[in-house]
Amino acid sequence: MVLVVRTDLKMTAGKISAQCGHATLACYKALVKANPKLVRHWERTGQAKIALKGTSEEQLLELEAIAKSLNLCARSIVDAGRTQIEPGTRTVLAIGPAPVRLINEVTGSLRLL
Amino acid sequence: MVLVVRTDLKMTAGKISAQCGHATLACYKALVKANPKLVRHWERTGQAKIALKGTSEEQLLELEAIAKSLNLCARSIVDAGRTQIEPGTRTVLAIGPAPVRLINEVTGSLRLL
Repeated sequence: MVLVVRTDLKMTAGKISAQCGHATLACYKALVKANPKLVRHWERTGQAKIALKGTSEEQLLELEAIAKSLNLCARSIVDAGRTQIEPGTRTVLAIGPAPVRLINEVTGSLRLL
Repeated sequence: MVLVVRTDLKMTAGKISAQCGHATLACYKALVKANPKLVRHWERTGQAKIALKGTSEEQLLELEAIAKSLNLCARSIVDAGRTQIEPGTRTVLAIGPAPVRLINEVTGSLRLL
């Protein structure tokens, strides 16, 4: 699973942590229904999670669309904005779990957070 | 749900993000079995997640024990240590979801991450 975190929002580490929790759970819940076998395999093999740097809302939406066009599970989190950022801000996109090769087709060029 | 993140390990934001994803999922999976009604309530009310500063492995273990003594769901993540930190290092403790009043009995004195 990859977590693409918007760095342009200048969120604190705490805010990023909570948003990544939301995104992880959103993808897990979607995929455990759609493809429980894939989720079990991921759980048995260390349930890898990698956080990557995103740069804008547009980029997150584009990556989400590409992921979905490859039949990958993808969920972006829209923050309620009660704390550090504007309501309705898209903060983190989670993709997967899925084979690394497939995820790399979407996010292979992004840098580690 | 609170996520107590060890700040003494000097993890990068990316590492913290992945560990918080692990911890969130661990607590969710445990509690959805033990108390699905509570999880549903939390999901319907914004599934709050707050990241807090932890200072040591001992502290994480102590908070985990206190949480469990109050019948709260608590899971700490032991990292495989393939990247930034030593194998077997405890990185993040998740507690909850649970009523704020109860979680505050365990982590009310900790600062926001």
